[in-house]
Amino acid sequence: MNRTDPEGAIAAAAARCSNAGRWGADDVLGTLNFLDGAKRVEGARLVRRGAVFSLAQPFDASGPQNGWRRRTNPVHTMLDTGLDAERGQGFPHGLGGADDVVFMPLQCSTQWDGLGHIFDHGTAYNGRRAGEVVTSEGDQVTGIETAAARIAGRGVLLDVGSVIGEDGELPDGFAITTEHLAATAAEHGVEVGRGDLVCVRTGRLSRARREGWGSYAGGPAPGLSFTTADWLHRTEIAGIATDTWGFEVRPNEFDEAFQPLHQVAIPHIGLFIGEMWDLDELAADCAADGRFEFWLTAAPIPFTGAVGSPVNPIAVK
Amino acid sequence: MNRTDPEGAIAAAAARCSNAGRWGADDVLGTLNFLDGAKRVEGARLVRRGAVFSLAQPFDASGPQNGWRRRTNPVHTMLDTGLDAERGQGFPHGLGGADDVVFMPLQCSTQWDGLGHIFDHGTAYNGRRAGEVVTSEGDQVTGIETAAARIAGRGVLLDVGSVIGEDGELPDGFAITTEHLAATAAEHGVEVGRGDLVCVRTGRLSRARREGWGSYAGGPAPGLSFTTADWLHRTEIAGIATDTWGFEVRPNEFDEAFQPLHQVAIPHIGLFIGEMWDLDELAADCAADGRFEFWLTAAPIPFTGAVGSPVNPIAVK
Amino acid sequence: MNRTDPEGAIAAAAARCSNAGRWGADDVLGTLNFLDGAKRVEGARLVRRGAVFSLAQPFDASGPQNGWRRRTNPVHTMLDTGLDAERGQGFPHGLGGADDVVFMPLQCSTQWDGLGHIFDHGTAYNGRRAGEVVTSEGDQVTGIETAAARIAGRGVLLDVGSVIGEDGELPDGFAITTEHLAATAAEHGVEVGRGDLVCVRTGRLSRARREGWGSYAGGPAPGLSFTTADWLHRTEIAGIATDTWGFEVRPNEFDEAFQPLHQVAIPHIGLFIGEMWDLDELAADCAADGRFEFWLTAAPIPFTGAVGSPVNPIAVK
Amino acid sequence: MNRTDPEGAIAAAAARCSNAGRWGADDVLGTLNFLDGAKRVEGARLVRRGAVFSLAQPFDASGPQNGWRRRTNPVHTMLDTGLDAERGQGFPHGLGGADDVVFMPLQCSTQWDGLGHIFDHGTAYNGRRAGEVVTSEGDQVTGIETAAARIAGRGVLLDVGSVIGEDGELPDGFAITTEHLAATAAEHGVEVGRGDLVCVRTGRLSRARREGWGSYAGGPAPGLSFTTADWLHRTEIAGIATDTWGFEVRPNEFDEAFQPLHQVAIPHIGLFIGEMWDLDELAADCAADGRFEFWLTAAPIPFTGAVGSPVNPIAVK
Repeated sequence: MNRTDPEGAIAAAAARCSNAGRWGADDVLGTLNFLDGAKRVEGARLVRRGAVFSLAQPFDASGPQNGWRRRTNPVHTMLDTGLDAERGQGFPHGLGGADDVVFMPLQCSTQWDGLGHIFDHGTAYNGRRAGEVVTSEGDQVTGIETAAARIAGRGVLLDVGSVIGEDGELPDGFAITTEHLAATAAEHGVEVGRGDLVCVRTGRLSRARREGWGSYAGGPAPGLSFTTADWLHRTEIAGIATDTWGFEVRPNEFDEAFQPLHQVAIPHIGLFIGEMWDLDELAADCAADGRFEFWLTAAPIPFTGAVGSPVNPIAVK
Repeated sequence: MNRTDPEGAIAAAAARCSNAGRWGADDVLGTLNFLDGAKRVEGARLVRRGAVFSLAQPFDASGPQNGWRRRTNPVHTMLDTGLDAERGQGFPHGLGGADDVVFMPLQCSTQWDGLGHIFDHGTAYNGRRAGEVVTSEGDQVTGIETAAARIAGRGVLLDVGSVIGEDGELPDGFAITTEHLAATAAEHGVEVGRGDLVCVRTGRLSRARREGWGSYAGGPAPGLSFTTADWLHRTEIAGIATDTWGFEVRPNEFDEAFQPLHQVAIPHIGLFIGEMWDLDELAADCAADGRFEFWLTAAPIPFTGAVGSPVNPIAVK
Repeated sequence: MNRTDPEGAIAAAAARCSNAGRWGADDVLGTLNFLDGAKRVEGARLVRRGAVFSLAQPFDASGPQNGWRRRTNPVHTMLDTGLDAERGQGFPHGLGGADDVVFMPLQCSTQWDGLGHIFDHGTAYNGRRAGEVVTSEGDQVTGIETAAARIAGRGVLLDVGSVIGEDGELPDGFAITTEHLAATAAEHGVEVGRGDLVCVRTGRLSRARREGWGSYAGGPAPGLSFTTADWLHRTEIAGIATDTWGFEVRPNEFDEAFQPLHQVAIPHIGLFIGEMWDLDELAADCAADGRFEFWLTAAPIPFTGAVGSPVNPIAVK
Repeated sequence: MNRTDPEGAIAAAAARCSNAGRWGADDVLGTLNFLDGAKRVEGARLVRRGAVFSLAQPFDASGPQNGWRRRTNPVHTMLDTGLDAERGQGFPHGLGGADDVVFMPLQCSTQWDGLGHIFDHGTAYNGRRAGEVVTSEGDQVTGIETAAARIAGRGVLLDVGSVIGEDGELPDGFAITTEHLAATAAEHGVEVGRGDLVCVRTGRLSRARREGWGSYAGGPAPGLSFTTADWLHRTEIAGIATDTWGFEVRPNEFDEAFQPLHQVAIPHIGLFIGEMWDLDELAADCAADGRFEFWLTAAPIPFTGAVGSPVNPIAVK
């Protein structure tokens, strides 16, 4: 890989990995097309104990965001409280109520990137012009609502942090390669294939939990190597998520770059990418019972026209 | 039922139906305690075709809210768009991006009521003082995050609108009784029991879809009769959701009242109530294949301290 | 005026009235250039009694907005309240506090339009490309902050509603012409000229106060005729405000049109337009003392890059 | 002053300085009662050159807030942009428009504290119970809207930073005493008295501008000594503002304390306090022409029930 030519590398990977047109000119689902009913039936059979895991971080003012690019943490405020109820709110027969509102960037915490989130030279997924897809009124073609009833299927955990890292964690700047992914899957005894939802644990969130957020949101991190683009394409997975803010390794593997793997994965592969997922409790359970596959539901809130969405992914084993 | 004494009726029902203390003084889960691993295993076995249904309404500015009690529809705005990306955003190698934010009341669309949402004479679930539970910092005891990893299990649809109504719809003010629920279950060939997640379709949303929102949010509606409190308690269901804004019949069945069934169901039964769910597509499928039970995941976004949460419930058959 | 050719009429008026280039290629102030120190000294001399008037409407959830074009009323919520303070907030020595937040469209209530608010065929004030001026990051050239330290000077009230209307009010659709403005000024005994801030009262807000908001925001209203464009240009006023949502008459005076006078006034004249001002109390005082001129300060909140701003205009006589 | 007994010191100062009842049991204006028409006439006569100064900081995402106590910087987003206008927005005759929204804590930048902002042992201004004044619906008695048409009068600058400090700046933790205020006024040749609006420059903002925000919002700062409570009361000023986040010296002058002067000034004196004002440009002008008095308009945006408000204070000389 030529560290000095990200543009060339991106163009080459895009040419090799593009799914543009694969599901027709009108397609808005990208790799979610790989996730079909048969895969869901397969996934549901993985429920053996009924053990359930939320893969979401807490959504609150203590989160990782620091205001960069106007990304704040969620600000949750009350319209009414129990204190108001005790004082009296004007309702009859002793009824009292509490109600609340939130302001939040849609990608401030555990999330899915929508297909309108990233463009390559002004081109969005499936060869559309970026400016025809996402205007100030939102993503008018591939808004996250198009994925509202899709993301439930077989989940696979690849705990690269535990298999490859030390004490369960990879260091910042560690680029996870196809070889690392394969070695982890082999160690876990799982296979990754068409229609799967892959969760890659790096251990970065475990470290943030221990040491504080620091630059968790937007800073250095372990993550997928740019060289995994072909694997992401070839495996025909439906989606992939990590416990880091940005999915791919940071700093990136070119001298001057910003999220080059996104530039291939989203507009060309049409891949659904999850970020800031909390995989620690699930990973501990998988290590304990030796089963790294599970039923996973990760349904975005269908904000019309959104280019991403908060999500509370639920794994059941 | 004495139409002129809601306070007495509420007190009597609360005395009959209270689960306070049932799971210990520290319990924060209420009826979600009924939803266990065995029930999840049972629910997962209902996945036969892998057909998937989102039970969420669209979350956008076109929703039902009209500003009453400061409840607006979600306001979704962009931080960056495809038009900005085409113009150039200062990223290297042709990368472009779109990002967005939202402001929303947490109960403006498809939602779960948390256990801190309603109080009875200043008392919250499990006998706590309302003002000790929900302050301006949020619900410090039963915040919706406590239910983050729970709500996945067996779902049952009771399409009362189709079984009891005309053309699939019940009129405003129609009080659904225990008898209606039983007749509907019998007609569907399903049983409702401990740990189930029950979805009651009234047809009110179908009408709003056809005629416009009007007073859908906050106005008259069909819904559960106050007299179903004992059924809600006795069946030991884990949660219940309707396609109306307020779950119970409106106007209420007392001369002067506001949501009296809430006042029993949430602080006394500890019941999780879902509102504004879209059950139409699921109902059509159930009618077609004759199976009114399914695997249901309805995970709230874990806003710390929230008394409710938007949700995209996902049913799989 | 040809009712069927708004585009031609706009182009002709723009050609007659353009101030593009008048203050140099870098100018961002438009007609505020007419408001100089001498005018401020003249205005300050109008303070005789020290009587003070706020020309702002209340900013709250009861305002005129109905969600059209995602314009809601302000949603004001508390971070802490007196009830929390009485309960105890963890501060030492008995200190208690209340704090609050707001979400609001910047043009939801009493406001200034900034020069980046309206474009003519993709052209912004001073001949710039609209897309070079206002991106998703805001107005990068004529953001309202550029007017932060400008709008204080001589105010003049033209109470057209009282002089021309019946019972102090003009009906919806009433187009105020140059003749109406001149007759009103003559009746009041005031002159309007270079650098003045002109307040035109139609009585529309008085009616909304009496009858309810109805379609106050976005609907029919009395207002300035398209034919006043030349007067707006010729008088060299610094700004003009009305008690209506949209400044100009609605429905507009062409068969198919939307705010054609804005299209001349903002991008070509570079005129500052105020909307939804409350002129009633001031008008009553002016009628009582016969003086229709005053000192006016109407400073926008300097949101960086905003294309408009809430304002609390303060008149002193 | 006993460093170990803030509670006793506060109680004693409150007893000496209380204005409770001074203007009747229904009063909501506090020290704004001192600002009358005669004072406004006096203030308006200070306009000699028509030079105008905005005393507001920029309101944007680059501001001083860091999320502490859910206080973020303003998040300003666009509903429509010039890029959308160039692409076409569906308006007739070539009209294009841009529109925007903001989410902000009301006290995140240049602001007024309202009288409902601070309580002493659960007591608000004029002897009211805090919980009767400020609920989740806002300040129902002394909301900032009650001050909408008041704050215009004679402004006086006390540039303590320049007179007492080095290079125009006081260090963090520097307590400005009555003697410092008197010495500064004497040096400037101004007097401070009944109904005045006093601006105290410490130089803290100049330092933040040079060195970065750091802990500007919420951290150490120069500011008024607790011992100035009697001066604040005795002088009968209408309001006072500083260029710091918190008006009084930080750390406070007691071993364990949090804003003890606020606890006297707001609920007992009924004093209007401005924070985070930008006094630098005005100070330079005053130093140049030797006149430290001016006409000042500082009108809050009248958010109904708000306990504070953003403001763009406008000084004219």
